[in-house]
Amino acid sequence: MTGSNDDRTSAETAALVEFVFGAASAEIPDAVLHESKRCLLDFLGLAIGAVAEPAVAIARRQCELLGGHEQAFALGTATRLRATDAAMVNGVAAHAFDFDDTHVPTILHATTPLYAASVALAQWRGRSGLDLLAAHALGYELGARVSLALYPEHYDAGWHMTGTTGPLAAAAASGRMLNLSGPAAVHCLGIAATQACGHREQFGTMAKPFHAGHAAAAGALAALLADDGFTSAPDALQGRRGMFAVMSTVSTPADLVQGLGERWEIFRNGVKPYACGVVTHPAIDALLRLQSEAGLSVDDIEHIDLQVHPLVPELTGKMEPRTGLEGKFSVVFACAIALLDGAAGERQFSDANVTRADVRALIRRIRLTPDAELDHTQAVATAKRKDGESISRRVEHASGTPENRLDDDALAEKFRDLVGPVLGSTQASELERRVWEIDSAPDLSALLSASVPSGPR
Amino acid sequence: MTGSNDDRTSAETAALVEFVFGAASAEIPDAVLHESKRCLLDFLGLAIGAVAEPAVAIARRQCELLGGHEQAFALGTATRLRATDAAMVNGVAAHAFDFDDTHVPTILHATTPLYAASVALAQWRGRSGLDLLAAHALGYELGARVSLALYPEHYDAGWHMTGTTGPLAAAAASGRMLNLSGPAAVHCLGIAATQACGHREQFGTMAKPFHAGHAAAAGALAALLADDGFTSAPDALQGRRGMFAVMSTVSTPADLVQGLGERWEIFRNGVKPYACGVVTHPAIDALLRLQSEAGLSVDDIEHIDLQVHPLVPELTGKMEPRTGLEGKFSVVFACAIALLDGAAGERQFSDANVTRADVRALIRRIRLTPDAELDHTQAVATAKRKDGESISRRVEHASGTPENRLDDDALAEKFRDLVGPVLGSTQASELERRVWEIDSAPDLSALLSASVPSGPR
Repeated sequence: MTGSNDDRTSAETAALVEFVFGAASAEIPDAVLHESKRCLLDFLGLAIGAVAEPAVAIARRQCELLGGHEQAFALGTATRLRATDAAMVNGVAAHAFDFDDTHVPTILHATTPLYAASVALAQWRGRSGLDLLAAHALGYELGARVSLALYPEHYDAGWHMTGTTGPLAAAAASGRMLNLSGPAAVHCLGIAATQACGHREQFGTMAKPFHAGHAAAAGALAALLADDGFTSAPDALQGRRGMFAVMSTVSTPADLVQGLGERWEIFRNGVKPYACGVVTHPAIDALLRLQSEAGLSVDDIEHIDLQVHPLVPELTGKMEPRTGLEGKFSVVFACAIALLDGAAGERQFSDANVTRADVRALIRRIRLTPDAELDHTQAVATAKRKDGESISRRVEHASGTPENRLDDDALAEKFRDLVGPVLGSTQASELERRVWEIDSAPDLSALLSASVPSGPR
Repeated sequence: MTGSNDDRTSAETAALVEFVFGAASAEIPDAVLHESKRCLLDFLGLAIGAVAEPAVAIARRQCELLGGHEQAFALGTATRLRATDAAMVNGVAAHAFDFDDTHVPTILHATTPLYAASVALAQWRGRSGLDLLAAHALGYELGARVSLALYPEHYDAGWHMTGTTGPLAAAAASGRMLNLSGPAAVHCLGIAATQACGHREQFGTMAKPFHAGHAAAAGALAALLADDGFTSAPDALQGRRGMFAVMSTVSTPADLVQGLGERWEIFRNGVKPYACGVVTHPAIDALLRLQSEAGLSVDDIEHIDLQVHPLVPELTGKMEPRTGLEGKFSVVFACAIALLDGAAGERQFSDANVTRADVRALIRRIRLTPDAELDHTQAVATAKRKDGESISRRVEHASGTPENRLDDDALAEKFRDLVGPVLGSTQASELERRVWEIDSAPDLSALLSASVPSGPR
């Protein structure tokens, strides 16, 4: 931990800010920008797909009740909210299904606060598609690196990373949308850092997606305030009473700068194939492989042993979920429904499914064993069949992780599944096409026009 | 620390919520309501007095740029903002001078987030003066008790109490303005708790009053969301990954309920007579007593020894402040200017004063000694005179603390000093009169009309 005096930004923070706010959009490698484009497709799918979720509807309604200038869309509707409200509502929406992407090493859901804030500001301020992608890529870099500097102690203590480092990521992307530089960029980051919040106790309630929405709105507000001369501590991260010292007992500021500009954290992004907590995915993969590769049938199962990373029972240990939302935090439910339905998409996590008799019966046959030797992208599933034979599969890299990534087609399929019911398939295709072409768009107007439902179908 | 299962609120939290949200306004003791009325006068004085401060002007301008329905005044102006924005702007304003009141045992600046949120909601929703006072008294009780359960470890770790427990206090007062009860009250508190934030690194920058504004807006938003069915964790404070466990290594949930309804925390409220960090006040008192009682003259001073609580140099140890704002966090500057000007009001903490030659010369003669035997309301000042004689004064209870409180007249004088320059003395008197009569007002309209500047003077 680097100390600081009154008016100096520690070297690591200063270098990261310079890189993230200073880089020209055109300098970002194409492969990085392509990742940001994939993230945009995933973000839009999730935000639009969740438009009717209760948490989203409430947030949108309260924002409308408070009012504001019509600056940016509540995605999936024709409603324009003020930019910070659009950031909040779209952040809640894109995280509502617990289906958004993840910086695998730190479990930060970076894209949701990033695009929730920057799409709103880009619409309001008429920024180009390329600038939006670059803001995402660089904001991702900042958010991921701040998270690396805090992980794992910070997360283990009970902080929800998306709520704590999400505001900083969103502030970086927002700051780029407003062309912040110099002291204003430092203040922008500082105003965001001091809004870091969100306890893991809230998992399984509407307050969890609220963390992502709050992060987006906090980041956008930080940029707007800093753009107008609002000040913050110069060393908000590394100072003696700053974010790192207060929110972690062990932090590693070197992570802010190591290999900066040489390697990109976005290549460690995971895109979720299953609509539930990311730590449950290796176990689901292992079971689906037992089914597809070894012909395991539900009727044959005597019992199943799941060896998983210790965080899995801690985060997703609910044995008797009562709602679809709780089911997303129940590894045994997720595994059971995946085996029974052959899928674990958004529609599987319904209130009706968690109480199904066949689901409950299968859950009772699943045993969970934490294994500290396993990484959180790994799991081993062993099924004891009624005929006495045991079959087993070990997953090294869960599907959707960087080492076993979803290709662009699989990603587009996830997008269409989410967006089709809201926009219809024709418009969903149009929106998808606009995303793949966004880097040459002078602004977001064509893309966002395609996101507005054209009327009752 | 009481653990919790999935759907239960721990007993202490449940009892506190029931008391704070459930009590009828008319049941609150008159003496308690009178304290809340005094706090309202102080709050309005500070919020109106700071109307032209840069931090306040920036916050107000950005809120106007974002827009909203005209629900509540930015105090000291004719501008109506949406309620959550008014909460934010008025919260920034009332804390901008570092001159607002303090729950002495925990250094929580309770009133600023409380009234910033509840005055805005009361104006919007047409609530009575009595209901407003009761919301303050009960919100104060909740905020102070949550702070007691966390103090001192939480504060020592670097959290700014007003940013962390302020949202809970504001949520309680806001929840009463919306008549929340039952599960909605629990969710309101939970949504606020998970927005707790604010690092002490930000002291001396605009981000410090922003913490108070954020707390007010976060509390108001929590109430609005909960009122519409938004959910949070049932045990957001005492749950295994809840606020207490995450934000402190030592918490004392018994403080939430001990003597609840028998003693009132508002009687431990301190009202600041000096416009600087509250921990500097005992030292200022001691020096002013050396001046008034022992005839100490600045020209006679060889040097001054100040024995102070160890937090004093930690929080206000700046030896060479460069701005008036930094001067508020410099005990040696505050003491020097108080001796030289015979006062330590808002106008003393100017950019010009911190660089005055006589001030700098006197600062160089002051030595600071931390003394762990002293309470933070105590200090000892010893002046060695040029004639070789030493004179000393010990302050047990700084002026403005509960044991040495400002009477209503002294409080009104502080109010007039702050408000007079903005509204003129006639209107300031009218506003003061409306405050003293607020408990019989059916709504806030007459009071707030008197808060709007009547035009150029």
